[in-house]
Amino acid sequence: MVLGKVVGTVWATRKDENLTGLKFLIVQHADMDYTLKDQYVVAVDSVGAGVGEVVLVATGSSARQTDVTKNKPVDAVIMAIVDKLDLAN
Amino acid sequence: MVLGKVVGTVWATRKDENLTGLKFLIVQHADMDYTLKDQYVVAVDSVGAGVGEVVLVATGSSARQTDVTKNKPVDAVIMAIVDKLDLAN
Amino acid sequence: MVLGKVVGTVWATRKDENLTGLKFLIVQHADMDYTLKDQYVVAVDSVGAGVGEVVLVATGSSARQTDVTKNKPVDAVIMAIVDKLDLAN
Amino acid sequence: MVLGKVVGTVWATRKDENLTGLKFLIVQHADMDYTLKDQYVVAVDSVGAGVGEVVLVATGSSARQTDVTKNKPVDAVIMAIVDKLDLAN
Amino acid sequence: MVLGKVVGTVWATRKDENLTGLKFLIVQHADMDYTLKDQYVVAVDSVGAGVGEVVLVATGSSARQTDVTKNKPVDAVIMAIVDKLDLAN
Repeated sequence: MVLGKVVGTVWATRKDENLTGLKFLIVQHADMDYTLKDQYVVAVDSVGAGVGEVVLVATGSSARQTDVTKNKPVDAVIMAIVDKLDLAN
Repeated sequence: MVLGKVVGTVWATRKDENLTGLKFLIVQHADMDYTLKDQYVVAVDSVGAGVGEVVLVATGSSARQTDVTKNKPVDAVIMAIVDKLDLAN
Repeated sequence: MVLGKVVGTVWATRKDENLTGLKFLIVQHADMDYTLKDQYVVAVDSVGAGVGEVVLVATGSSARQTDVTKNKPVDAVIMAIVDKLDLAN
Repeated sequence: MVLGKVVGTVWATRKDENLTGLKFLIVQHADMDYTLKDQYVVAVDSVGAGVGEVVLVATGSSARQTDVTKNKPVDAVIMAIVDKLDLAN
Repeated sequence: MVLGKVVGTVWATRKDENLTGLKFLIVQHADMDYTLKDQYVVAVDSVGAGVGEVVLVATGSSARQTDVTKNKPVDAVIMAIVDKLDLAN
């Protein structure tokens, strides 16, 4: 999984019909010290994540293993909201 | 998903027989401020996207989860046309 | 899909038994103006592509969605031969 | 698979309900001489790996082929703890 | 598929129980003129490849389409040993 921060939302009314009701969030990749990188992914929210929260994103077919994304054409899902990172010294 | 802009079309008459009728569009990757990057992907259109439109592209097996791409040898699909991006300050 | 040009062939007699008879071509990635990049992928041919032709390559599980690659350990397939690209100005 | 070293743990209480009980470890990519790279992946542990250990990480759908990750939205799993590498001269 | 050269072996006694007996080889990516790149992948051998041999590696779910890797948590497999490359001038 990739660590990132939710920094925005994508609005799209014309989309695959199975995507109705899904929330598309913009996630900016982050380093393990939370420094934001110049890299973004648009991911479907499955855990009630909001702007400003640090999250984990699963990609590929694994992104379809949640109730909200099952069998849908999405390749990235927020599946966890991060409380904290414990990094060894 | 990746954010991009439709910048062209690929014509291919000799192709896998299951691909007949599909529209192959050239999508240029874009940053969250719509700046275009020097990176491209050829994606099948599933939502009626046209040149100049900003879109989301799903890749990998997720690209086969639309009615037009099911069980076909395509690894990228346009599954949404972007209306706008809301970016947090 | 990735745009590329067929620039060679890989010969391999010792291989997974399900790969017998498949043609492994070397595809060099290309930009949308056909400039070749210093990046290569070895892909199975499913459309009768030959050296010098510009092609589309599908990767990942999508590479196994053709008659010749079904259930085989290959992660890249040439599924279309490109006639031309229409790029918007 | 990617070679890496476990350097930390991710804590996340709000997550997909199927992820309860899984251990999310931070794995830093390593070169074949064990030099750490500035690249990280968050992976689920399936083999009892701990901080400081060198491991192999499988990604994508292959990350769901263990007892603890089956059908769950995770795209990286630690599936082996490395004893040593034998590199040819 | 990726072209590479087998340069070593990974030893791991603590691993997913379905991986017992598999041989994990270190494959260094190579250019089409056999120049080795500073990029490595650990792949399961399915064809009896040995150190020094040039091979093809399939990744992702395609890596699980051999008899030895079926349903196992591995994302890279050596599925062919290269005899030679024919590159167009």
